[in-house]
Amino acid sequence: MDNEQRIIKKFFSPLAKNRESLNLKNDAAFLKDKNFVISTDMMIEDQHFTKDYNAKTIAKKLLRINLSDIAAMGAKPYGFFLNIAIPKMNINQWLGNFVNGLKSDMKKFNLKLFGGDLSFSSKIFLNITILGKTNNVCHSSNIAKTNSDIYVSGNIGDAPLGLKLKNNFSSLECLNINKQKLIEKFELPKPRLEIGKRLLNHAEFCTDISDGLLRELNHIAHQSSKQANIFLDRIPTSFAVKDVLKKNNKKIIWEIILSGGEDYELLFSVPKKTKIKNKIKKISNIGYFSKGKGIKIFDTNGNEFFVKKKGFSHF
Amino acid sequence: MDNEQRIIKKFFSPLAKNRESLNLKNDAAFLKDKNFVISTDMMIEDQHFTKDYNAKTIAKKLLRINLSDIAAMGAKPYGFFLNIAIPKMNINQWLGNFVNGLKSDMKKFNLKLFGGDLSFSSKIFLNITILGKTNNVCHSSNIAKTNSDIYVSGNIGDAPLGLKLKNNFSSLECLNINKQKLIEKFELPKPRLEIGKRLLNHAEFCTDISDGLLRELNHIAHQSSKQANIFLDRIPTSFAVKDVLKKNNKKIIWEIILSGGEDYELLFSVPKKTKIKNKIKKISNIGYFSKGKGIKIFDTNGNEFFVKKKGFSHF
Repeated sequence: MDNEQRIIKKFFSPLAKNRESLNLKNDAAFLKDKNFVISTDMMIEDQHFTKDYNAKTIAKKLLRINLSDIAAMGAKPYGFFLNIAIPKMNINQWLGNFVNGLKSDMKKFNLKLFGGDLSFSSKIFLNITILGKTNNVCHSSNIAKTNSDIYVSGNIGDAPLGLKLKNNFSSLECLNINKQKLIEKFELPKPRLEIGKRLLNHAEFCTDISDGLLRELNHIAHQSSKQANIFLDRIPTSFAVKDVLKKNNKKIIWEIILSGGEDYELLFSVPKKTKIKNKIKKISNIGYFSKGKGIKIFDTNGNEFFVKKKGFSHF
Repeated sequence: MDNEQRIIKKFFSPLAKNRESLNLKNDAAFLKDKNFVISTDMMIEDQHFTKDYNAKTIAKKLLRINLSDIAAMGAKPYGFFLNIAIPKMNINQWLGNFVNGLKSDMKKFNLKLFGGDLSFSSKIFLNITILGKTNNVCHSSNIAKTNSDIYVSGNIGDAPLGLKLKNNFSSLECLNINKQKLIEKFELPKPRLEIGKRLLNHAEFCTDISDGLLRELNHIAHQSSKQANIFLDRIPTSFAVKDVLKKNNKKIIWEIILSGGEDYELLFSVPKKTKIKNKIKKISNIGYFSKGKGIKIFDTNGNEFFVKKKGFSHF
């Protein structure tokens, strides 16, 4: 367990002993009687972005990281509440850009703005609470079984490498066009709403990879009392990530791919031999659960691959 | 219209053209099909409190200002989502106190914690999104009629004077015991849940006085195309406020009482001659609406009383 989980377990789980909270172990709360899921996520200046980021892109990312939780629950986007605290300087220009981004993604994802709160603050603080509609069922479990296959959607590693490149982590070599692609993946994640819905009644658990593949997988392995086994050569990567892997220290890059956050792909498991790939596109089987605990990663030669840090914790 | 309202009207109202948002003109959104109201409110370091405030008191106030919105809608408290961004220093001590306050008020107001988000931040940022249950009806209108009587709950002015005293606005004279009472009213507002519910099907509009009596009244007068007429000698004040009025410049103190925020009492109107005081305790008739616009305040001699600033705007 990392510090963030320890804080949640120590201080907040004891206050959340109700059916709706799902013990704070899922991406959203489930109000079953009302057929709703609700989730909330923040973005804070100097923690998730810096002052020079484009407000239009920030607005879209803020919506999308919240939509990613709706995707992970297998729900349908409905509406949201917005909290904005911003400095007074250039407020009209900043809000104009921000609202442009919001408007465009609200249309794209069919979302309604229900309300919010506005305040002054020396640093930018943003928060969305989002509601999704369900049809009696959602991904409310977070337990995997022995021998179940582990899957991810899309490609892994684009966003954490994009973040390094955006912040001019100068030693990274790659083609300029790939640099742009990776940064774009960091800035504009794609919430996997369709995949999340199609996995209903198939997946044992489903979560989004917001704080790194290994961290999310570690949670699930711990909660399920299982060992997760994954294989480097099965981790799906984009051409851009392959370019970075080729031109830089492979071990360092793999650590970033596996442990870095911000990918917002889905991580889920299905019982062994479920032919889920026949039903759903853009997903990859990356390993399986076995008896034991923790995570084992295997490289292309079948040797164990060790990483220093298993994902991102705020504390 | 003040700057905050202008910002909301310019940037956010165009995005909130849906039935649920009530055009962003009420204290909460109303999800009628689901019998829910939902509202969200922030508290930010150096804006709503300073680092030295007790975390236990901050937690209670955060819950109560959100509960006040539930009261203003005439709904019943249900549950909430909590966003916390805090510095790493003394995190365990701060969270211990905060959670103590939360726990005690969750019990008092019968509230469930459904979920939230936790992050690091150099300044403390807090937000709650709260859900209330309704029974098909809530205070969803914000229009008053000509000749309707204007009412407030409780006493007005305690909290804004308490805020001045807490921040050592040194020229204020009053008994020490009254100083303590006023500060306590600022720190621990009482959400008027019972009154809000009892006003259902009686009040034309109902809102909480979070940013000052005159500001809230000005909104309603503007939206209703009416003039609000109120009388200083009908404004209910506590013994502590009376003590402050007696020992200081009356005009300055009345300005604080009328324009200062944080009281979290309810402001509402009922059709003329409705005998609402027979039904509900702790409410006062402070004036009436007439044809015209804006607000007219009359002193004990029937002369018009002019104030410089009609309430608190963040911008």
